[in-house]
Amino acid sequence: MSIFDVAVWKNGRVCMMDQRLLPDEEVYLEFDSAKEVADAIRDMVVRGAPAIGCATAFGVAVEAKRIAAAQGIPASWSEAMAEGMQTLRQSRPTAVNLAWALDRMQPLLDSTPKEDVPKRLLQEAEDIRLEDIESCKTMGRLGAEILPRPKGRPLSIMTHCNAGALATAGYGTALGVIRAARDLLKDIKVYANETRPYLQGARLTSWELLKDGIDTTLLTDNMVGHIMSQGLIDVVVVGTDRMAANGDVANKIGTYTVAVLAKRHNIPFIVAGPLSTIDLQTPDGSGIPIEERPPEEVTHCMGKRTAPLGVRVRNPAFDITPAELVTAIVTEKGVVTEPTTAKIKKLFE
Amino acid sequence: MSIFDVAVWKNGRVCMMDQRLLPDEEVYLEFDSAKEVADAIRDMVVRGAPAIGCATAFGVAVEAKRIAAAQGIPASWSEAMAEGMQTLRQSRPTAVNLAWALDRMQPLLDSTPKEDVPKRLLQEAEDIRLEDIESCKTMGRLGAEILPRPKGRPLSIMTHCNAGALATAGYGTALGVIRAARDLLKDIKVYANETRPYLQGARLTSWELLKDGIDTTLLTDNMVGHIMSQGLIDVVVVGTDRMAANGDVANKIGTYTVAVLAKRHNIPFIVAGPLSTIDLQTPDGSGIPIEERPPEEVTHCMGKRTAPLGVRVRNPAFDITPAELVTAIVTEKGVVTEPTTAKIKKLFE
Repeated sequence: MSIFDVAVWKNGRVCMMDQRLLPDEEVYLEFDSAKEVADAIRDMVVRGAPAIGCATAFGVAVEAKRIAAAQGIPASWSEAMAEGMQTLRQSRPTAVNLAWALDRMQPLLDSTPKEDVPKRLLQEAEDIRLEDIESCKTMGRLGAEILPRPKGRPLSIMTHCNAGALATAGYGTALGVIRAARDLLKDIKVYANETRPYLQGARLTSWELLKDGIDTTLLTDNMVGHIMSQGLIDVVVVGTDRMAANGDVANKIGTYTVAVLAKRHNIPFIVAGPLSTIDLQTPDGSGIPIEERPPEEVTHCMGKRTAPLGVRVRNPAFDITPAELVTAIVTEKGVVTEPTTAKIKKLFE
Repeated sequence: MSIFDVAVWKNGRVCMMDQRLLPDEEVYLEFDSAKEVADAIRDMVVRGAPAIGCATAFGVAVEAKRIAAAQGIPASWSEAMAEGMQTLRQSRPTAVNLAWALDRMQPLLDSTPKEDVPKRLLQEAEDIRLEDIESCKTMGRLGAEILPRPKGRPLSIMTHCNAGALATAGYGTALGVIRAARDLLKDIKVYANETRPYLQGARLTSWELLKDGIDTTLLTDNMVGHIMSQGLIDVVVVGTDRMAANGDVANKIGTYTVAVLAKRHNIPFIVAGPLSTIDLQTPDGSGIPIEERPPEEVTHCMGKRTAPLGVRVRNPAFDITPAELVTAIVTEKGVVTEPTTAKIKKLFE
């Protein structure tokens, strides 16, 4: 299905590609407990909202397997699993899919015959993975249909961070739209922003798109304004880690900057994300917590120090793009243009 | 005068700090010919428009010394120096101070008694250096006077790249304004953008400001929009490599992006540069050539590869900020608010 395994079940364990080693090495790691999976999520072995959702679900499944092996079938699965579930829940605060996956797994602990719980959780995790691939493909198709179609030259798409196969179960949200655009329009080219501090654009998006044979040009994040001012970008397509009920979008730091520049240059700004990233409980972006990550990510690059000792640092991992800057939201249930709370709510009906 | 030597005459040679090694090491290199100085400018041992102007002038002086030592006083200084002058002229295409320094040295080749030329060129180079320090201090004072003065909290200034002591003869243009602001207002804090690909903000600005005891917070370039949206920035102050007659500003890549974001957040955007960076021959920014630097700067960071082999790259070193986004231009001859061709021309009267 995919050209690489982001988060799968293999040999009775959770298996994930260590994305920290890309683009140099394709190494797979295996995990045997919720704690190990939570650590891997926090340490960014795996990243991207839907991929974190998958990893979380498999983390719950492997925790049940571990408990059953260590102490047999517990009197209360909810109690036995509570610590593992909580550890997973706290691993990354911004990604809503993490809580979404846990909330989907949780009821199964009590509603399933006790001895079937491990098997049932694994089946649910596998369902989540397959549904994600399906929903990404649908999103891709719906998104590709609304892209501009320049005559006589390739469609030029800018993307930020990695909302790709590597950020999902294997096809991608923003990069799913790009893959579908390639299939639909044939001639496309992509500008990928490197996305400091973690370089997901340089390390992951460029790697993933080249592997797929898509013409990709790498930019540093501060080139976005200049490249847009030269008329080189037709459309921006990004993913999202969490969307508020009104269409305000939390996504990788820098997304808001790209959206403001797109607005100035009249370039459509499209956000692709499954319904699981839409948080109806949060009315607007001001209610979304922004994770502040360790300062070393900013004072270093690829492990080498870039800045003098003693400098202060800010390292917000995400920012909020207000709905007014979003041209369209693409979900597996349809496209919403000029998003509002009412329009978004309709997707859930 | 300065806490470090950017480009000076020492022991009969041109001496420059190797800025490529900052913030880890303070190493000084010495040069004996125009060719060596031109190589150092191209390879970014020294960078920043006024610093390049100084280095160029000392490069001309050391070339005359070299020629006199090698072949005695030539029949025509203009002819003997032509190759060296041309090599210097071609070392960086965007910095106007390079041509400005050469055009100031050139007439001396013919107007000075032949045997006095080497001494005269050295004197002119030293004058250029001292005038630059004086003009930066004047700019600093004039710039500091027009900054906002928030009550009950420190003034918060954002800067991009390094328009500092390291980019000039020793005081700085944008960072000169910041130094003067610290002296005038006491309580300031600075947000420095790291400025990929070359990391002048992380490596140089942070280093230089910390060395001067100024409270400095480092950001990646893509955090600018988010940090501004949080109300954390009162004013942006940047330098310029070349300004067109109408006030369009060429400066380090990313400056335009910062200016667009400042406009959206109603944050004043101030450009500090000496008259020598204003190019009256170029009516507007469209006439300023943008240097495209090697792709390896983008596919690598601190010498480590960040991107897969085979990815395309753009690496424009500068961008153009249109005059409409510039709140004020600060020069050593005065401040121009809402710049126009007519207002800028008046500075030269």
